[in-house]
Amino acid sequence: MRTVFWEDGVLKLIDQRRLPVVLEIVTYNDYQKVVAAIKDMVVRGAPAIGATAGFGLALAAFSSKSSSKRDLLSDLQVAGKELVSARPTAVNPGWVVNRIIARVAQDETQSLEETRNLVLQEAQLIADEDVAVNLEMAKYGSSLISDGDVIIHHCNTGSLATVDWGTALGAIRMAHEQGKKIHVLVDETRPRLQGSRLTAWELDQYGISYEIISDNMAGYFLRSGNANKVYFGADRVAANGDVANKIGTYMLALAAKDNNVPVYPVVPTSTIDLNLRDGDQIPLEERDPREVLDISFRGERVTPIEAQARNIAFDITPHRLITAIVTEKGIIHPPFEENLAGALRND
Amino acid sequence: MRTVFWEDGVLKLIDQRRLPVVLEIVTYNDYQKVVAAIKDMVVRGAPAIGATAGFGLALAAFSSKSSSKRDLLSDLQVAGKELVSARPTAVNPGWVVNRIIARVAQDETQSLEETRNLVLQEAQLIADEDVAVNLEMAKYGSSLISDGDVIIHHCNTGSLATVDWGTALGAIRMAHEQGKKIHVLVDETRPRLQGSRLTAWELDQYGISYEIISDNMAGYFLRSGNANKVYFGADRVAANGDVANKIGTYMLALAAKDNNVPVYPVVPTSTIDLNLRDGDQIPLEERDPREVLDISFRGERVTPIEAQARNIAFDITPHRLITAIVTEKGIIHPPFEENLAGALRND
Repeated sequence: MRTVFWEDGVLKLIDQRRLPVVLEIVTYNDYQKVVAAIKDMVVRGAPAIGATAGFGLALAAFSSKSSSKRDLLSDLQVAGKELVSARPTAVNPGWVVNRIIARVAQDETQSLEETRNLVLQEAQLIADEDVAVNLEMAKYGSSLISDGDVIIHHCNTGSLATVDWGTALGAIRMAHEQGKKIHVLVDETRPRLQGSRLTAWELDQYGISYEIISDNMAGYFLRSGNANKVYFGADRVAANGDVANKIGTYMLALAAKDNNVPVYPVVPTSTIDLNLRDGDQIPLEERDPREVLDISFRGERVTPIEAQARNIAFDITPHRLITAIVTEKGIIHPPFEENLAGALRND
Repeated sequence: MRTVFWEDGVLKLIDQRRLPVVLEIVTYNDYQKVVAAIKDMVVRGAPAIGATAGFGLALAAFSSKSSSKRDLLSDLQVAGKELVSARPTAVNPGWVVNRIIARVAQDETQSLEETRNLVLQEAQLIADEDVAVNLEMAKYGSSLISDGDVIIHHCNTGSLATVDWGTALGAIRMAHEQGKKIHVLVDETRPRLQGSRLTAWELDQYGISYEIISDNMAGYFLRSGNANKVYFGADRVAANGDVANKIGTYMLALAAKDNNVPVYPVVPTSTIDLNLRDGDQIPLEERDPREVLDISFRGERVTPIEAQARNIAFDITPHRLITAIVTEKGIIHPPFEENLAGALRND
């Protein structure tokens, strides 16, 4: 089953807030509810919210009451803006919306109904491509994994973070399917706990050996020589190779670098944003502080009732901490500025 | 009120597992229950478990059925070993037990009853000294804090981690009482959440401005220039200045160093263990994995039922990441090997 899929004229999403307790599929026939679902993290993971934005645009197209193609395009622009701004850090929703609108704008001879169907067709194509691209990335990413590796993995980058198969976790899964004996140390990934909640659940399903650690333990395992690879995904990569990813990635990469452990972001080239010179230009989402405060230990709330908190959802890992960036077009080494642009020119 | 105190012939501890929900005092009249209380973190923080071990030894002395002083000393040795091994990383319980036993062994003329009272007297002296030493540390530690500072603080190092007043948090509290306008970013400190549970509660009581962050957010605040000091305590400092402290300290110090933000452990000299050459000789406790797994978000358990976890309770921060070590004898700068030994020679 895919994480994001179109069925019977509606968008369906696995509700990732309920996992691993309940596997529930939620149905959407209104793009504004899709915007809310992205905001509330029913669906998360840069490629998954990209595909979701595409199908959201299809819902907007079918519900548009426009009687001219021009008005329909204008409705799509409005919906696209809302879908993209639901979460600002990942570049994928913007890339998807731009691609679909450009696709439907280029052919002026089509009827309104044909245009609506073209939006859906392109959204479906993007979703299908995501799976194909992930399999390519997994091939390259798994080639860097050796028998006996202990890999620290941050956040969730598996099937749930994409349409299917995943980015960094896809590479790990493929290494496992190739018969390599590996072990994953799963960063729990505070505050939303995508690691202990989603990555652990996926690894259970694939039969891959793992242990959950709190994010702040990674340094211990790296320094003591008990972890020898670091894998994660990305929400946006700037032209110089700086990577925006789930909060905590920067500190993890620092600890890896301090111990000469290689650091591999696994990202589709659609996540690379050559318009942004460096990571400091990437917008970093700040979310509701209650995501930090609403935590219980052994069933009891721990924070004082009146406590304040900050909740920065992403951080920037400078390119100097990154060994190589794994994409569906191959493994990109430094100097990233030159080699990322080169990889995208081959499009 | 002190965190650890002797009253009406028994040891009393604030039960830190119940805070901030309930402020409960628990009474102990049996040293083996004190061992269990240290293990289960009813009391935690290196200086606090040191003082607790001292009073635990007094309980062992009063309950000993020995009819000779030699047998009593032997009973104290047994109890001391159990109290020290309850948690292996902090040096303080060992330092306290050795000091008390050396004190009572040196005078051979005392009766059994006088010896028992001497154990208690020395334990009380150690507890009182802890408060005095903390006030000295706070003077030195607060001198490094300026108006407008934003300080990242790891774990709990306040009154609750000591007999009273605290180490790193004591310095922060004194800076606040000196009228300096400061703000504290409180690392929640997974897995036991001493930051969001205890440090936030203490800062509330002192009226100091703070916000809780998840541990993995510290890098963001340091890199973006929104935090300019890092303070924490220590469980043991090796002769070369390597510091064992609550898990996550190493990654925090790395992120500070990467952004030229000064890093200050605040530690009584009793925490410095010149017998250990470097941090790799300090034993690091591994605790029950359920402390990582028994976490709920918005009231719902997040980890798969069968999930495995690791729970390393401390890590080593290499001395190269430390700006200066604040003690009750002054601020010790690198080279630490020379200057730590020098500070202890002045005893």
